[in-house]
Amino acid sequence: MTPVVEIRNVAQFEGQDVFIQGWLYNLRESGKILFPLLRDGTGILQGVVVKSAVPAQVFEAVRALTQESSLRARGKVRKEKRAPGGYELDVAEVEVLQNVSSERPYPITPKEHGVEFLMDHRHLWLRSVRQRAILGVRHEIIRACRDFFDDRGFTLVDTPILTPSACEGTTTLFEVEYFDQKAYLTQSGQLYNEAAAMAVGKTYCFGPTFRAEKSKTRRHLTEFWMVEPEVAFAQLDDIMALAEGLVAFVVARALERRREELKTLERDLSKLEKCAPPFPRLAYDDAVNLLKEKGSEIAWGSDFGGTDETILSESFDRPILVHRYPSHVKAFYMQPDPERPEVALCVDMLAPEGYGEIIGGGERAADERLLLRRMDEQKLPREAFEWYLDLRRYGSVPHAGFGMGVERVVAWICGLDHVRETIPFPRMLNRLTP
Amino acid sequence: MTPVVEIRNVAQFEGQDVFIQGWLYNLRESGKILFPLLRDGTGILQGVVVKSAVPAQVFEAVRALTQESSLRARGKVRKEKRAPGGYELDVAEVEVLQNVSSERPYPITPKEHGVEFLMDHRHLWLRSVRQRAILGVRHEIIRACRDFFDDRGFTLVDTPILTPSACEGTTTLFEVEYFDQKAYLTQSGQLYNEAAAMAVGKTYCFGPTFRAEKSKTRRHLTEFWMVEPEVAFAQLDDIMALAEGLVAFVVARALERRREELKTLERDLSKLEKCAPPFPRLAYDDAVNLLKEKGSEIAWGSDFGGTDETILSESFDRPILVHRYPSHVKAFYMQPDPERPEVALCVDMLAPEGYGEIIGGGERAADERLLLRRMDEQKLPREAFEWYLDLRRYGSVPHAGFGMGVERVVAWICGLDHVRETIPFPRMLNRLTP
Repeated sequence: MTPVVEIRNVAQFEGQDVFIQGWLYNLRESGKILFPLLRDGTGILQGVVVKSAVPAQVFEAVRALTQESSLRARGKVRKEKRAPGGYELDVAEVEVLQNVSSERPYPITPKEHGVEFLMDHRHLWLRSVRQRAILGVRHEIIRACRDFFDDRGFTLVDTPILTPSACEGTTTLFEVEYFDQKAYLTQSGQLYNEAAAMAVGKTYCFGPTFRAEKSKTRRHLTEFWMVEPEVAFAQLDDIMALAEGLVAFVVARALERRREELKTLERDLSKLEKCAPPFPRLAYDDAVNLLKEKGSEIAWGSDFGGTDETILSESFDRPILVHRYPSHVKAFYMQPDPERPEVALCVDMLAPEGYGEIIGGGERAADERLLLRRMDEQKLPREAFEWYLDLRRYGSVPHAGFGMGVERVVAWICGLDHVRETIPFPRMLNRLTP
Repeated sequence: MTPVVEIRNVAQFEGQDVFIQGWLYNLRESGKILFPLLRDGTGILQGVVVKSAVPAQVFEAVRALTQESSLRARGKVRKEKRAPGGYELDVAEVEVLQNVSSERPYPITPKEHGVEFLMDHRHLWLRSVRQRAILGVRHEIIRACRDFFDDRGFTLVDTPILTPSACEGTTTLFEVEYFDQKAYLTQSGQLYNEAAAMAVGKTYCFGPTFRAEKSKTRRHLTEFWMVEPEVAFAQLDDIMALAEGLVAFVVARALERRREELKTLERDLSKLEKCAPPFPRLAYDDAVNLLKEKGSEIAWGSDFGGTDETILSESFDRPILVHRYPSHVKAFYMQPDPERPEVALCVDMLAPEGYGEIIGGGERAADERLLLRRMDEQKLPREAFEWYLDLRRYGSVPHAGFGMGVERVVAWICGLDHVRETIPFPRMLNRLTP
């Protein structure tokens, strides 16, 4: 029986008769030979249909195929150095499943389309070689993150999406009608992670998070995925090393397993290859001085803007760890540096090449009274955080963790200008479809 | 330097001096010897503190420890057959990080507590041996699902949580204020999966899904996780085999890697060990006949109720695949059986021992006109599904997939009566906290 073969595996079937199931990606005609490019989601294979070698109806059926028409083709796999991928299919027979009507042709043609048009057709745009390459890299990055934590004894603890209160204020929360209550979509699993770390020692969560920001920058989505580890007894240096290890592992894995996809995306691989530890560690104070030297008007005490982040990250050839920001620009749960309480034991990682912040984290305040004071200062409702305060009442320990935004890492590793292509179905201020 | 050691690894440090960091799980006193049970999230280790062998303040510090107090202990690891886990720590020194106040003691004591009380203290309850075992099995099940698909050439395509419309009607949807629009929390990634399958051939999504059902049964959560594969060119038999392979793989993995946790949960492992392929396949017609024989009053054409599912699943010693339900009880996108259009090419998998439906899926209608007719019948708004209909206009192919609910699988494999313990922070009709 003739086997049905995925295009990625054709090399194993050289000289054999196989079925390929897929779609017409492109069709070229050269005299009495047709060259249909077939795609099946695992690769692209060039078919060859020689008029004199096949029944007339086979030749005519292939010649009539329109872009994205679906078909089954039978033929022999032949090695062919000049063909993309190194193999061709000598087509003997075709079964057309659906010929896309020429009155309603496939909307995405090889010509240039505007971004809004492509986003409106995201469900079809994903079929392009470039978008498929991004999906592959994204998948590998996610798998690498999970492998990294799974292989180091972390327990996955899925934190809830529907939450009764806000982690860092309510202005950027999506509100949900939860029967007769209000709920909010999570912005971070961190507070729940802290509870889990006291139960399992080392934990991580990995899921979608939400931010109702009215910003339309190239770095913001309203729905994005985050991986967040949290480690009992860890201190700032420990999680800086953990963050460095994770990012180096993810980059190495992408280079090892997705080199083809990265080449398709025309990524400069030499820049990724430089991203090996140690990553430079830079105190906030030193980062401010560096920025001033480079002409920024930043003053000590401010958080970095996008431009500052770009200047910093372009000053190094690998990711950098900026630590000990002023406490007042950071969230209420950050642990102040005991030697210098005006700065927090926190860290951000900035990706190189201007891709901005990809990780934020730090040590969490372990003392109940300190937390209560900071919550008062920030006017947070104590009642909603009683369970969180319990973690400081019943065996409080030093602990630390961070969150890494998947889409920004995908944008950086793939070399994309905008995060909108890093997630299959992006959600933005003006985009909730398809 | 004395190493800090995780309890799971103490066997590697026999005879050595180590630090253990963790919490007091329990304290037993026997004459002039104290036996503190220490937990660190990776295991439990019995300490031994002999009054005559340590400074008085060490002995008194351990004697004063309350449940869940946090500490660092230094001591020598000694093999001890009689101790739980086979090792003990001869404690030489302790540093108490926080002694839980006896005026505000740890709320979960070894005595029995009501479920609502435990659920209110879920952030602490997770520290119990039993809950930690469930977290471990859940983690393994999730990892096994991902490994299964990753190793078989599936591409992970994360489908959106915020969606503009309903997959199967709007009565059980959570509504979200999305700037000046309405959005809904996803009930299934399936429709998006179908788009992805046309792009990558074999895809899966794995994320939280939501159902605003006002039911308070032991099988329902409002927020739960689903893994959903979708395969271009697959037909009903293909996805029945895929579902069978997945479930057998997951059960085998749990038995292989989480035997200790399953024993902690007092799971009857012999019942899980029977769950090897082939799983019985049963047409809906035959299932109805079997139910009637067993005294059910079901009539052909009705969907199964919970009791029917229990009767069916208790009739076999492994999961069963029930296929070809009446079309009218299934969703609009189901492909009718061409030989018998009154039944759909769909399948549900029922877990044994009365755990009910864990998988639902089938072939998807590939024809645009058929879909339009079924959408009209079910009064679904065509405009919201235009993008979905595009998949039938531009190279439609047969395709099939299914969804597996993680929490029900965890309940079954762990042998739990209620799904509320299968997810770290359950969300139910009357439960949105902590």
